[in-house]
Amino acid sequence: MFERGYRGAGVRDIVSEAGAPQGSFTNHFRSKEAFAGEVLDQYFDYLREIVQATLGDRSLSPRGRIRRYFDVITGKLKAEKWALGCLIGNLSLEVSTESKPLRTHLSNIFAEWREPFAACIAEAQAAGEIADNFPARDLADFLLAGWHGAMLRMKVDRSSKPLEQFKAIAFATVLARRPR
Amino acid sequence: MFERGYRGAGVRDIVSEAGAPQGSFTNHFRSKEAFAGEVLDQYFDYLREIVQATLGDRSLSPRGRIRRYFDVITGKLKAEKWALGCLIGNLSLEVSTESKPLRTHLSNIFAEWREPFAACIAEAQAAGEIADNFPARDLADFLLAGWHGAMLRMKVDRSSKPLEQFKAIAFATVLARRPR
Repeated sequence: MFERGYRGAGVRDIVSEAGAPQGSFTNHFRSKEAFAGEVLDQYFDYLREIVQATLGDRSLSPRGRIRRYFDVITGKLKAEKWALGCLIGNLSLEVSTESKPLRTHLSNIFAEWREPFAACIAEAQAAGEIADNFPARDLADFLLAGWHGAMLRMKVDRSSKPLEQFKAIAFATVLARRPR
Repeated sequence: MFERGYRGAGVRDIVSEAGAPQGSFTNHFRSKEAFAGEVLDQYFDYLREIVQATLGDRSLSPRGRIRRYFDVITGKLKAEKWALGCLIGNLSLEVSTESKPLRTHLSNIFAEWREPFAACIAEAQAAGEIADNFPARDLADFLLAGWHGAMLRMKVDRSSKPLEQFKAIAFATVLARRPR
């Protein structure tokens, strides 16, 4: 599903990749839509671990933790040669017009994803590390959306440049270190 | 293709929507990939007109023209009830892993799209309207990528909020009006 998209990954391909008997799919999943929901949950579990290991790393300043998150994700994307991007972003554009259950699922994931970022940004604001002229949640949404846009361009250009550009500009402007 | 995606729009559907005889598709297009290239070109022609009418509007300041572009696009997206987004962004995530010709096509579109934004940003920088600590082209790429991220979230949440958030934060930070 990551490589071929929601529609490109047929049930037959999925079953065959899994080495499962043909016809077993419907014993485990109501539909391909339900299967994609489980795929999203597993993928997001993996992201939660990265969030925990970076935004939860108390050895860094709050602003430093956010930078660490984007740098760790950049390393993961590099390992895939900038070709795959983020499954959540990919499915967001592919399926949200047509599948209401998957769209709602994705919307819930984004809402949960925002929270640890918002907490980290609020901490950076409270410590005077960055400006507090916008609510932390709005900044978290802005950053995550911008990062998804950067990954979109990365996929099209097969290049890390959009990611590095995003980090350089975001950390010098939206997340600028406040003068003491 | 806009509503159902590249894979979701079958050649049979396309021909039937166009009221063309079955089998006529291959008289006009080498492949569905070639057809999608033409669709992208027509769509980008439409965007070029919006770019011209907004970024080319000399009655506004350069920074005001950029704002106008995003506001006009917001109006178009509203007419589609936040459901469709941008065909270029949608295809970027759906096809760029698998189709090299379409990926290259999309990459060229983004490169051309950046230029009028970069010119407008350079003008705003030269006039002292915004800061000049980043090259205009880098800022143009950052803004367009961020806007695509905002449209992604708009599609998932069926809401204008990510677009309004993008504009409010981008114009107060990355494109902040310089004190005189």
